[in-house]
Amino acid sequence: MKIIDGGVTAPKGYSAAGVCAGIKKKKDKLDMAMVVSEVPAVAAGTFTTNVVKAAPVRWDMGLLQEKQPIKAVVINSGVANAATGLPGEEDNKEMAQACAQALGAGITCCNIFTASTGVIGPRLPMEAIKIGAGMLAGALNDTREAGHTAATAIMTTDTIPKECAVSIELGGTTVTIGGMSKGSGMIHPNMATMLSVITTDAVIDRALLQEAVSAGVKVSFNMISVDRDTSTNDSCMVLANGLAGNPAITEKNADYQVFAEAIRYVMTELAKKMAADGEGASKLFTAKIVGAVTKEDAVILAKSVISSNLVKTAVYGNDANGGRILCAMGYSGVDFDPYKVDLTIESAEGSVMLFENGMQTDFSEEHATKVLSASEVTAIADLKLGDAEATAWGCDLTYDYVKINADYRS
Amino acid sequence: MKIIDGGVTAPKGYSAAGVCAGIKKKKDKLDMAMVVSEVPAVAAGTFTTNVVKAAPVRWDMGLLQEKQPIKAVVINSGVANAATGLPGEEDNKEMAQACAQALGAGITCCNIFTASTGVIGPRLPMEAIKIGAGMLAGALNDTREAGHTAATAIMTTDTIPKECAVSIELGGTTVTIGGMSKGSGMIHPNMATMLSVITTDAVIDRALLQEAVSAGVKVSFNMISVDRDTSTNDSCMVLANGLAGNPAITEKNADYQVFAEAIRYVMTELAKKMAADGEGASKLFTAKIVGAVTKEDAVILAKSVISSNLVKTAVYGNDANGGRILCAMGYSGVDFDPYKVDLTIESAEGSVMLFENGMQTDFSEEHATKVLSASEVTAIADLKLGDAEATAWGCDLTYDYVKINADYRS
Repeated sequence: MKIIDGGVTAPKGYSAAGVCAGIKKKKDKLDMAMVVSEVPAVAAGTFTTNVVKAAPVRWDMGLLQEKQPIKAVVINSGVANAATGLPGEEDNKEMAQACAQALGAGITCCNIFTASTGVIGPRLPMEAIKIGAGMLAGALNDTREAGHTAATAIMTTDTIPKECAVSIELGGTTVTIGGMSKGSGMIHPNMATMLSVITTDAVIDRALLQEAVSAGVKVSFNMISVDRDTSTNDSCMVLANGLAGNPAITEKNADYQVFAEAIRYVMTELAKKMAADGEGASKLFTAKIVGAVTKEDAVILAKSVISSNLVKTAVYGNDANGGRILCAMGYSGVDFDPYKVDLTIESAEGSVMLFENGMQTDFSEEHATKVLSASEVTAIADLKLGDAEATAWGCDLTYDYVKINADYRS
Repeated sequence: MKIIDGGVTAPKGYSAAGVCAGIKKKKDKLDMAMVVSEVPAVAAGTFTTNVVKAAPVRWDMGLLQEKQPIKAVVINSGVANAATGLPGEEDNKEMAQACAQALGAGITCCNIFTASTGVIGPRLPMEAIKIGAGMLAGALNDTREAGHTAATAIMTTDTIPKECAVSIELGGTTVTIGGMSKGSGMIHPNMATMLSVITTDAVIDRALLQEAVSAGVKVSFNMISVDRDTSTNDSCMVLANGLAGNPAITEKNADYQVFAEAIRYVMTELAKKMAADGEGASKLFTAKIVGAVTKEDAVILAKSVISSNLVKTAVYGNDANGGRILCAMGYSGVDFDPYKVDLTIESAEGSVMLFENGMQTDFSEEHATKVLSASEVTAIADLKLGDAEATAWGCDLTYDYVKINADYRS
């Protein structure tokens, strides 16, 4: 697998665009994006488990169920089109129809994935959306730059666009996977993810694509949390247009494994970028659980640690408060022996064991503070009960998180 | 039921004390408390479900299992004695032994409930604890003031002591219930509670006392959250010494109902005081769910709303972001029809409906901001599906929460 500089336009046959359609309050901000495949693509996806599902989520889930070939993804940022009832669903369909019309012959609204992100409650500004659809169709380009502009246009409180691309060799043919995502607050994916578009030129069977996507999401997007709030709009949309011309993946052979591993890598990189860019975050905080009895136990424990407000504020303050990590593991619902746990903190500044066999060590506060002061910090808890492990990614909880969210709508 | 000004010394036969034993870093702060019953009391309690249980929690659960009569409760604040292993359990027993010795004849360590609260990890300073035990025994008094001093001595980041007392008439006899509690951070009780001592002079069967306690905890302490972090030390300890001389409650008769209702009231008042005094909180935020199919659904939904960081920051910012409330309900795990929900915000400043049938109303932002600016704000969501309802209490998430917790140990 080769990591390449790129995003959704890295694979063959994809173009993208990002425009300023006037949806956001700040009128000079990019707020609509589009990704288009030259030919109809096999599609897969995972979506939020929130009962309050946004209109675009309901739409996309319907298209997937009907096994529609997908040619384009349109995304607006600024208004989530969630909790907008049936009128919101009508607005969403009109957005897809406007894009179909702008993209021209051979495409209907049923070939277009939609996504929205922003404030929950208000209706979409349809005038701006329709004009934006036209602008996007006109601006489409298959360059690296166009992919980057699209990744920028889907941002809300994100501070950096999130992209990743890799290439793999399948049967002597180069297959490329590219992706972009956005997400900074209301991040606690649950069998789904925030907004993410992943493109590939691989030739792959629809069911196998979905399987690789679901497996990847489970260990990437579903292992991050910024604030424990599972969004109404989480969507991971994946397109495979087959233009690489690799031997078709129709069974779980070696090619499938390489492909699945590559898509997992792209998803994990995007997920980590989201955690590190969590609202107000000053550092990426990783929790790794080892020595668990089952993988499921390790997953629950790791997520509990990165989700704890008290752990996150301690990480922000460079405070080696390992007791809070043990506490967050303790209330996770997983059974373990607290008198066996070893807890270590690691970063580029070194490592320090805070607890050994469940009891606080005589660690140096000065050294621990230094370890915690790095921009990426990992806590490793060894349960010493089995061989299972899991990793989850989060961030610290800062003044800026409160500032950003105390008045998000204004 | 009559509400009276008082705390744990309000019922007959209880004395209390609070002293400065030098456990906390600030050496002039009260940090040890004791409550003593003149005669052995029937005891009940609920404790944290956290797997990492503090040494005193393990101790108290053992005493309850052995049905030990309880004569005293000793509490230290400053060090949680959690994640301290078997040595921590030994320390805890020594604290109980020191108290038994100081209290004199007819009492052993097995008649003493213990509780600790503070930093997780460090060992108890046993020298200070033992001297403190002696000071407490010497300072015991049955006055209103002594109860208040004890309630002050168990505080950590709390800004106000929390007390409540009521009296009821049972078979022509006055029975009194008094209580105190502490809790401000790491508050998300789960079939348990933070530190709370409730005293009564009622004559009541042990099993019925436990039943009334468990039922009360379920709708009071278990319905609050400050930060979704379930503590290692949650304990609600209840003593009934029988000195009121009421007709013994040995069955679920009318007297039992009056008693259970009164203890529920005391617990709920203490719980609300804890939520309002949540770390950094500027206001009490109540979520009431009505029209749910089952009580369990309503409980889960109400707790999900008051636990959401995004809802809590919006409440802090007086931002009428009802979409976040719907979102938090949506990811709670409860199934409901999002297109039916009405959402209203109420306070002393008035009321405003933000969503009707799942869609945002055309509410006045100015009026909504005014409603939200009160010191107590309630959100009421009507699911229009059934008759079940539940209420949960929380607080807003502020800069001060981050400040308090970024450097708690120093």
